[in-house]
Amino acid sequence: MTQSIAIIGASGYTGAELIRLIATHPSMKITALAANSKAGQSMAQVFPHLRHLDLPDLVTWEQIDFSTIDLCFCALPHKTSQEVISKLPTSVKIVDLSADFRLRDPEAYKQWYGNDHAAVEMQKEAVYGLTEFYREEIAGARLVAGTGCNAATGQFILRPLIAGGVIDLDEIILDLQCGVSGAGRSLKENLLHAELSEGTNAYSVGGTHRHLGEFDQEFSRLAGREVTIQFTPHLGPFNRGILATAYVRGEAAAVHAALAAAYESEAFVEVLPMGETPSTHHVRGSNFVHIGVVGDRLPGRTIVVATLDNLCKGSAGQALQNANLMLGLEETAGLMLAPCFP
Amino acid sequence: MTQSIAIIGASGYTGAELIRLIATHPSMKITALAANSKAGQSMAQVFPHLRHLDLPDLVTWEQIDFSTIDLCFCALPHKTSQEVISKLPTSVKIVDLSADFRLRDPEAYKQWYGNDHAAVEMQKEAVYGLTEFYREEIAGARLVAGTGCNAATGQFILRPLIAGGVIDLDEIILDLQCGVSGAGRSLKENLLHAELSEGTNAYSVGGTHRHLGEFDQEFSRLAGREVTIQFTPHLGPFNRGILATAYVRGEAAAVHAALAAAYESEAFVEVLPMGETPSTHHVRGSNFVHIGVVGDRLPGRTIVVATLDNLCKGSAGQALQNANLMLGLEETAGLMLAPCFP
Amino acid sequence: MTQSIAIIGASGYTGAELIRLIATHPSMKITALAANSKAGQSMAQVFPHLRHLDLPDLVTWEQIDFSTIDLCFCALPHKTSQEVISKLPTSVKIVDLSADFRLRDPEAYKQWYGNDHAAVEMQKEAVYGLTEFYREEIAGARLVAGTGCNAATGQFILRPLIAGGVIDLDEIILDLQCGVSGAGRSLKENLLHAELSEGTNAYSVGGTHRHLGEFDQEFSRLAGREVTIQFTPHLGPFNRGILATAYVRGEAAAVHAALAAAYESEAFVEVLPMGETPSTHHVRGSNFVHIGVVGDRLPGRTIVVATLDNLCKGSAGQALQNANLMLGLEETAGLMLAPCFP
Amino acid sequence: MTQSIAIIGASGYTGAELIRLIATHPSMKITALAANSKAGQSMAQVFPHLRHLDLPDLVTWEQIDFSTIDLCFCALPHKTSQEVISKLPTSVKIVDLSADFRLRDPEAYKQWYGNDHAAVEMQKEAVYGLTEFYREEIAGARLVAGTGCNAATGQFILRPLIAGGVIDLDEIILDLQCGVSGAGRSLKENLLHAELSEGTNAYSVGGTHRHLGEFDQEFSRLAGREVTIQFTPHLGPFNRGILATAYVRGEAAAVHAALAAAYESEAFVEVLPMGETPSTHHVRGSNFVHIGVVGDRLPGRTIVVATLDNLCKGSAGQALQNANLMLGLEETAGLMLAPCFP
Repeated sequence: MTQSIAIIGASGYTGAELIRLIATHPSMKITALAANSKAGQSMAQVFPHLRHLDLPDLVTWEQIDFSTIDLCFCALPHKTSQEVISKLPTSVKIVDLSADFRLRDPEAYKQWYGNDHAAVEMQKEAVYGLTEFYREEIAGARLVAGTGCNAATGQFILRPLIAGGVIDLDEIILDLQCGVSGAGRSLKENLLHAELSEGTNAYSVGGTHRHLGEFDQEFSRLAGREVTIQFTPHLGPFNRGILATAYVRGEAAAVHAALAAAYESEAFVEVLPMGETPSTHHVRGSNFVHIGVVGDRLPGRTIVVATLDNLCKGSAGQALQNANLMLGLEETAGLMLAPCFP
Repeated sequence: MTQSIAIIGASGYTGAELIRLIATHPSMKITALAANSKAGQSMAQVFPHLRHLDLPDLVTWEQIDFSTIDLCFCALPHKTSQEVISKLPTSVKIVDLSADFRLRDPEAYKQWYGNDHAAVEMQKEAVYGLTEFYREEIAGARLVAGTGCNAATGQFILRPLIAGGVIDLDEIILDLQCGVSGAGRSLKENLLHAELSEGTNAYSVGGTHRHLGEFDQEFSRLAGREVTIQFTPHLGPFNRGILATAYVRGEAAAVHAALAAAYESEAFVEVLPMGETPSTHHVRGSNFVHIGVVGDRLPGRTIVVATLDNLCKGSAGQALQNANLMLGLEETAGLMLAPCFP
Repeated sequence: MTQSIAIIGASGYTGAELIRLIATHPSMKITALAANSKAGQSMAQVFPHLRHLDLPDLVTWEQIDFSTIDLCFCALPHKTSQEVISKLPTSVKIVDLSADFRLRDPEAYKQWYGNDHAAVEMQKEAVYGLTEFYREEIAGARLVAGTGCNAATGQFILRPLIAGGVIDLDEIILDLQCGVSGAGRSLKENLLHAELSEGTNAYSVGGTHRHLGEFDQEFSRLAGREVTIQFTPHLGPFNRGILATAYVRGEAAAVHAALAAAYESEAFVEVLPMGETPSTHHVRGSNFVHIGVVGDRLPGRTIVVATLDNLCKGSAGQALQNANLMLGLEETAGLMLAPCFP
Repeated sequence: MTQSIAIIGASGYTGAELIRLIATHPSMKITALAANSKAGQSMAQVFPHLRHLDLPDLVTWEQIDFSTIDLCFCALPHKTSQEVISKLPTSVKIVDLSADFRLRDPEAYKQWYGNDHAAVEMQKEAVYGLTEFYREEIAGARLVAGTGCNAATGQFILRPLIAGGVIDLDEIILDLQCGVSGAGRSLKENLLHAELSEGTNAYSVGGTHRHLGEFDQEFSRLAGREVTIQFTPHLGPFNRGILATAYVRGEAAAVHAALAAAYESEAFVEVLPMGETPSTHHVRGSNFVHIGVVGDRLPGRTIVVATLDNLCKGSAGQALQNANLMLGLEETAGLMLAPCFP
């Protein structure tokens, strides 16, 4: 049976990525596409790379007939997302790709995002969408909150290590490079080709990046005690891809074993042989995560490197993986596209 | 019924692209992968982006048991390709991605490639693999010769215009930019990132590029008279994509009409509304061709711009499209992947 | 004696490039920097790469004391430029980098730029700033109009050929690729890294690019008859550089000889040996022009390829070269920086 | 008085960078250029961006008449460098850009580079070329060993902190991204544009990068005890630039104060205001270092980010700065070129 899908926020990069993936999904059909600022336009105008697809024109989200929709992806900016989602009929399953329902605690939300949450009750109901770790809750959920793309990458490294008790919880540093599409299709000077290509820079240095809210919530919950990591993201001159380099205290063999065990049955997470490290080039355009472990020359210290595609596994691919679960479909449906290299 | 596929030359970019595409093909299975220089290695070693696939290890092509193979893709360099193909059992269907069987005339082959052809009889048998124009011959062929990637792009523009008699055959200029993957995985100084990124240059200027052999053969055959065009390729600092800009003499309306008519029923060729022109960004990673037409301010002159992905529609995608036809499968099977943007 | 310099429009890329060049100029000192939208900021805030220089903070142009200024560079957008320049005291020499004074004919200005010119008298006075061809007029001028960057590139190829009578004036095609800094520091979706990197597209196709106004004016004046060329620019995924490929009718030897003769004594224009063509990589960051000539396989047709750095020789470097002449300085002062490769 | 300069190893990137810088140096003249594998070629053939310069053709180093040379830059690969340098006349001052004379201890050299040192006596004589910290020794030296580019970047951050006693010596992590020109003009698959652009990866993970030999030597010497840091380099898709992110234990204010004091009088090192961090974009093509300090949300932890251009300040610029000192010239001569942005 084909599932009827709506996407709100279809004029951004994660919206486009959802459409790209659903284009070859065996049992989903896109019934409605909304982008209030571009309502009335065709998708070929907004994203010419989707020109070959038979897609509905853009409407406002208020114009969607939700009685015909099985599941709605919401790819709006945070704050707008909570306002829209709180008005959608409760009959519709929702996968939100924004930051609005990632943090369970309204105080934490306010701390990291600056505003009071407009849908506190829904915030409680939402399931955190890191599929590999919340699979059962997601399958039964009505509202799933997609994770931050950096937050997902860091958790793929650190969750099994924290859960397995193989690292020192007070000595975790996560250094990360993120491709520019993570910043969305927004008109900012630092995102111009002339400003960003041919070089790199750090940003949100010193523990101010919002994805730390997710790390704090998830790692502390997992450890049963407060865990606060150091985290420095960098902006790299490439469109897709995140590479996270974690510095942890623990034996490399134990770290590798914990990761290998955690992901043994996972379709999308590949743990490389000990001593090898991954590259963002090799996951581009796909839903895969590659993780590598190397012991440092300093005894008891280990480096773990993970890569994924921020737009796919870090956002739209994860969202589709969750939607598959919520709709009772095969979890991997539409997601086995091989990475696009070179 | 699943078709059993072999790929010879699996350690190059077009070999990898074939595997990427076949990975989600509904009725093909890769049974053998050969790369004589890397025999014994796993594909995960040679191309880590294919790590998640269950693929046979690399062998030499001589080690392949062709009795189990329905169709063999040959992604070797030219000259090597003809030597290998001439030794394969005649029971196997072959799609060659090299330049070796593109030119029907042994003299023309020698002129453009410098050596005598080692399989002249097969050269005669081979069908030129531009699917949209040789569909029936391809469906019945045993050996299909993939076209040059630049040659394909130029022909998508010019064949309908020549066939339709809407342009001056003596005044055709084709200016083209090609991404670097078109040069393959070869260790040449000018292909290094430090040499090639952040700029561009022309090459094979003045009518010396080998794909002119294909243009001359095909356009002259189509016109029933000698047609010789001017052609200047440029190397662009991007991995995938060809953009061809054709300067022709003829009315824009007639040019647009001829293209629109030619591709009306084609699944992979999109003719844009009059006055719009395409971008390589919007076909990257896909089998689509986008074509746009604009009339010049000088009366009677028209510019036509076409884009495709050199590795996909320009090589491996075209090869798979041809293989589908040769095996009696749906022509579009495995090829409807949407472009990967951004 | 040190010349006192002001720059109006110092917060854009051409403003920054002027400062970069003047930083090592032996006899210029920057006395005032204006950018009305960023007045009050330091240059280190607006352009951190200039942090090491001892520069005045940004003011509004109205705040500049022009009695202390020998020469003022005006790097404003067109239309704004004419309004500002018409109000500057006539004692100040001016080099304008905008399009406002390039076209001598007010009708042509209106045709290409859409608005009536607000300083028609100054338009007549202005000297066209292609240094190598207007050297004497520039040396005596009060107001010099910098050329378009594409317009400069095309003229370096075509002026000697038109003047020398070695090509057919009715059969000139100029195909061009321009780096993204040519579009300035403006917030447009198509200039974002995610949209522009990894691919290319044509724009202003069909004879609609504004630099055609300059080509028409200059080539017709030079030929003593109307000359209208075909011109198609493309946007390339690199920051600096223009590569123009001209298709002309004429003998390659005569074309090469005309170019070699024209530039024999020029410090900044290098004509390559016959048969070689240049690359934008090799002029990046410099004031040099490289030109190459190749005869086509079709008799009587020739391809000429020229490269320069759009921000330097195509704009700020040319402006400084002109300023040197206007101030009686060595023409090459501050401009002999070698290209920055790789 | 003009100094007569020879460059051995002029066909690599650091050789080219030396020529670029010396091109506008007020008191150096290049008298001889050697590259044994390309002897007989002109520099315009090997590096077309240097075409405008009046340079000697390439010879073998054995052909150089060293009696006419004041100072020789040696830009050869390590191991070759020591063999050549040991044969040069002792009358010539030498700045070596290779790794051969960086490590004072022959055992350490063998540990990191794998071979016995062929010029152990000269190894002892050589002065470590980090100008800002060895200025006096360099001024009096005959042989100066250029530092590793990554090693330089890390030391600009850490030396003042170690010397000032403001950080914990056992808890230093240095995470770094390096542009591709750092790997030289070598034909390796991972340096191809198609492999390296559009993504990133770590390399030499776990404490195996050779520049650790320099860190260990210098930091231990400075601290008067063994100091061993963790160090992970990454390869970024850009040509020039290094960005190092250091994680240290110490108060941000003390860290910032130590850096500000150390570089107060330095012409090339800029310490940003507290809380700001630098970008490689803003030092490209220049001899400048930008350093920024941010306190982490975790008390007592601080992040320091430094950027420089690996080819310039990290290699050829540093070498020229040292040569200036060795020849009694102004230290900044030829090195005040502003960064090339965008």
